[in-house]
Amino acid sequence: MYDEFELIEKIAAAFPTPEGLTLGIGDDCAILDPGRFDLVTTDTLVEGVHFRRDWMTPQDIGYKALAVSLSDIAAMGGGPGAFFLNLTLGPNDDKVFVDGLIEGMLEASQKLSPDGFEVSVGGGDLTRTSGPTVISITLMGEASPAGPVTRSGALPGDRIAVLGPVGLSEAGLRILRGDVDVDPDDFPALLAAYRRPLPRVHEGALLGLFGVPSALIDVSDGLIQDMWHILKRSGMGASIETHNLPRHPELVKFCEQTGLDILDFLLSGGEDFELIVVSPPARMTKLWDLARRYGWDVYDIGEIRSSTEGLRILAPDGTPITRPFPGFRHF
Amino acid sequence: MYDEFELIEKIAAAFPTPEGLTLGIGDDCAILDPGRFDLVTTDTLVEGVHFRRDWMTPQDIGYKALAVSLSDIAAMGGGPGAFFLNLTLGPNDDKVFVDGLIEGMLEASQKLSPDGFEVSVGGGDLTRTSGPTVISITLMGEASPAGPVTRSGALPGDRIAVLGPVGLSEAGLRILRGDVDVDPDDFPALLAAYRRPLPRVHEGALLGLFGVPSALIDVSDGLIQDMWHILKRSGMGASIETHNLPRHPELVKFCEQTGLDILDFLLSGGEDFELIVVSPPARMTKLWDLARRYGWDVYDIGEIRSSTEGLRILAPDGTPITRPFPGFRHF
Repeated sequence: MYDEFELIEKIAAAFPTPEGLTLGIGDDCAILDPGRFDLVTTDTLVEGVHFRRDWMTPQDIGYKALAVSLSDIAAMGGGPGAFFLNLTLGPNDDKVFVDGLIEGMLEASQKLSPDGFEVSVGGGDLTRTSGPTVISITLMGEASPAGPVTRSGALPGDRIAVLGPVGLSEAGLRILRGDVDVDPDDFPALLAAYRRPLPRVHEGALLGLFGVPSALIDVSDGLIQDMWHILKRSGMGASIETHNLPRHPELVKFCEQTGLDILDFLLSGGEDFELIVVSPPARMTKLWDLARRYGWDVYDIGEIRSSTEGLRILAPDGTPITRPFPGFRHF
Repeated sequence: MYDEFELIEKIAAAFPTPEGLTLGIGDDCAILDPGRFDLVTTDTLVEGVHFRRDWMTPQDIGYKALAVSLSDIAAMGGGPGAFFLNLTLGPNDDKVFVDGLIEGMLEASQKLSPDGFEVSVGGGDLTRTSGPTVISITLMGEASPAGPVTRSGALPGDRIAVLGPVGLSEAGLRILRGDVDVDPDDFPALLAAYRRPLPRVHEGALLGLFGVPSALIDVSDGLIQDMWHILKRSGMGASIETHNLPRHPELVKFCEQTGLDILDFLLSGGEDFELIVVSPPARMTKLWDLARRYGWDVYDIGEIRSSTEGLRILAPDGTPITRPFPGFRHF
């Protein structure tokens, strides 16, 4: 295994561009460029809880560790910059594992950096544990000049859109976990959604730049639970029409083969990292413009209502749905 | 045990002041006050490596987790602000443990915040592990208007001072580990140095404000190893006179009783979090002024030389010391 200084050197060499940093690795603190970053998000992935080595390559794990944080910056309408890595390695973590992790983080940073932004390493801490590997990433970002987009700006009459299909990652997880009797080779998109999610970082940055959303969140806990986060913070209710939710062909096939209810996946599946965009009707035209120009999938799934109406979810046949929605539990 | 939302609520309630934050816990990202923070440091404490429950109370652990990061901000001549907590709890962590941790962090923030600065929680992530508890803290800080003080500004002729006694924490650790046959009750200061270190946060912020140091570092790895960090980054050599190093009475007694060589503790003991201040002779008068006004202990221990002279360490009798200096290994 690498010693501490070799490993620091390896990480520093993988992310050489000190974007947004006056000083990166090598002193008591990193020094940020003055006034550059105003967004901070942090996420921890724990082996056995958030990833398993028999389900994901080291590259997948590194990729996902950074992707989840990139998604949080996107969900503020901002762009990502420097990140800090707290890597707590277990007894069996070898060079192959660590090299793969770094490679995956680099892939995520290259594939997922929106135009005009670059992801760099500002520092971190390397430690050892006798238990499962723990990876924490703290990512800094820049809000749009139009201001950060929070969860709390939704108003009655605002439309609710989702930028892509949901429920895929949860189905992928169930295949990997062996909960269902299907041939994994038939469901590459579901497995990829779990292993290599595509957070909407380009979309989030552009939506923020054009000041489109009144509220924004990424689907990490499940569509309904994340919708609830917006409603609670905004003091609003909403009406969601499930017949407008996109149904990915693989998810449809998966539910046919397993007999599971696709609505459970659409409404409660976590970790798809699609954006839920809430926007006043007048600004929806800008969203459609952007969608046409960049080839985004946009699905209009409902409307913000006053809080007295609560959250009404309509089944495809128009009847209200009242089932409980557990969503993803991290803790 | 608390559920996730109860625990977030508990942490948010313990640190209610959103100092430096436009938006704290509760959205996809924290939003920092524009242009407020330009320093970032992050540290991980792992159970069994950096702390043990039979050696420290939960309060001690929480206190130290924040103290080590506060020390890094001090070592840039800055003041601390918002921190982010990645808490990965083990199977046996109960309410008593978590309450104690938070209490200890609160104590550290209150006891160690320099005048004019306040430490607040900006966010975090709560997770579970089947293994040892892992605590990562990422702390943001503000550099002085005179600019951050790095490790790389030392110049030939600069004096080297240390702001307090070193070697105590290492001796405390050996007592706790049972390496030595002494009565722990005779060495409260050594145990406290390990459990409840007092990083020089007030001193660091004031030194930065008055632009005193040309280079600054805190003693986390051991005096010589940390001195090496400055010399390597500055491209300098140095001469250290060990007879000027402060010898704490308890450390002297500890070495008498154990037969261990006090120089090993003074030169290689880690985690004392005293500041090593490198300063041009002309600005040393300001350091002495501050020391008189605030009652600091300042020990002038040597001089920066050109790199060709390397690091020369003189024993109390004036002979050069050539022994290897292992210092603290984190990884």
